[in-house]
Amino acid sequence: MVDSSSTNKQRIALVIQYVGTNFHGWQRQPHYRSVQAEIEDAIASIVGHKVTIYGAGRTDSGVHASAQVAHFEVCSPIPAQKWAKVLNSCLPDGILIRASSEVAPHWHACFTATYRRYRYTIYTGKIPNLFLQPFTWHYYYQPLNENLMAEALKPMLGHHDMSAFRRAGSKRSHSLLEVQEVSCVRYEQDLINIEIQASGFLYGMVRLLVGMLVEVGAGTKSLTQFQDIWMNCRREEVKYSAPAKGLCLLRVGYPEFPFPESVWFNAQPIFTFS
Amino acid sequence: MVDSSSTNKQRIALVIQYVGTNFHGWQRQPHYRSVQAEIEDAIASIVGHKVTIYGAGRTDSGVHASAQVAHFEVCSPIPAQKWAKVLNSCLPDGILIRASSEVAPHWHACFTATYRRYRYTIYTGKIPNLFLQPFTWHYYYQPLNENLMAEALKPMLGHHDMSAFRRAGSKRSHSLLEVQEVSCVRYEQDLINIEIQASGFLYGMVRLLVGMLVEVGAGTKSLTQFQDIWMNCRREEVKYSAPAKGLCLLRVGYPEFPFPESVWFNAQPIFTFS
Repeated sequence: MVDSSSTNKQRIALVIQYVGTNFHGWQRQPHYRSVQAEIEDAIASIVGHKVTIYGAGRTDSGVHASAQVAHFEVCSPIPAQKWAKVLNSCLPDGILIRASSEVAPHWHACFTATYRRYRYTIYTGKIPNLFLQPFTWHYYYQPLNENLMAEALKPMLGHHDMSAFRRAGSKRSHSLLEVQEVSCVRYEQDLINIEIQASGFLYGMVRLLVGMLVEVGAGTKSLTQFQDIWMNCRREEVKYSAPAKGLCLLRVGYPEFPFPESVWFNAQPIFTFS
Repeated sequence: MVDSSSTNKQRIALVIQYVGTNFHGWQRQPHYRSVQAEIEDAIASIVGHKVTIYGAGRTDSGVHASAQVAHFEVCSPIPAQKWAKVLNSCLPDGILIRASSEVAPHWHACFTATYRRYRYTIYTGKIPNLFLQPFTWHYYYQPLNENLMAEALKPMLGHHDMSAFRRAGSKRSHSLLEVQEVSCVRYEQDLINIEIQASGFLYGMVRLLVGMLVEVGAGTKSLTQFQDIWMNCRREEVKYSAPAKGLCLLRVGYPEFPFPESVWFNAQPIFTFS
């Protein structure tokens, strides 16, 4: 008798961490190592045929994720909860599956998501620190006023066209999105965290936004100038993209998510020295 | 006219960070990448001849350092303070010179030091976390009582023979040392920091000590058994060495140290999630 679980198709959701340094972003592409390809290849090596996984969002080359979410469909005797451990035994350094679970057939990692939340970390100390390097932008050129940066973010709350912060190459048909939460906090003498939660993000958006936000913090752009540029979609005036390594896809929100908070909530540690 | 600074021999001290994962320990050895060899080779590539650097302590393969100290002698027109930047431009990923400074000819990174301080970090959460992996021991087999572990450390304060925690291969003539400070704190729900400051350390000492300390924390060894073993130098009963990746040479102390605290004090960030 064949175990029914091996013949019935299951939809499996994964919560995934990766260190972006090692990969050319999430999305599979020819000639480069991507997180999607590594996980798909790991699944294929287990089930013996090609499988496609669908991620909640495409992170750029070099961007980290503390709780990316993806799903795939499979017929396998492996219990849904065991997929995390099985995959971890096949995956390379720099990718970790935190947990796996079965989800309903209509549940979709990308389309069911209600928000994505990104965190950007800036280290403002004068002396470089090796332990911070892979996860922060070392910005020590000018002092940054984090309160001005927080002020600059506030008017973004709500529904807006964010095409000022859209890199070429995006496949989205429009640039409208709902920004749900924003914050910019100097939580430690030399460390600033910026967090942005939105219904969706445009290609390169957070890095372009942070690139201009530090101009506000450094006093080279006023709050009015900043707001004027993005509200009027003046893409040509947004010149700098903050380094990818400071950025982390912190979490993805779902109305029905089969994982406890301990798996997906703020799974990127923050650094302190006290 | 020749610049006098290029003909006079200078003694230069360095404060060094490294991620142990990438190297076979501090000490130069044939066929393996070591931190000492990488820095010596970098200096040699600049001055054009072989130079020896003297470190404050030899860290094992895989052990990190947030403020290792070393010195070397050189005749060069490069100002002492500039050596950090010059070396960083030649060094591989995973090694960073935080600062450099001239020191007196009698100053010695190893022999002038009054203490070394090590930190060991244990992650006790059930779910693995990729961002903690390179810097913590993931111990989730049994709950750990950090108060018992702190109790077990206290009797170590003072002068003791620590040969119970001495790995074969040490070149020291004796196992006597002065333990100056000890602590074991659960500073976050799933993270425990153990810190030990002593006049010197034996080969493999902290890892053997932590390996037995978790037995106390897990309740499989009593405080009395623990104390009995190390006080009576029963080396054969110390069986487990905690993984190297959880260990970091946190700092080295000197009566005269030419660097400000911001360079060397607690330069390894701790992880938090709140």
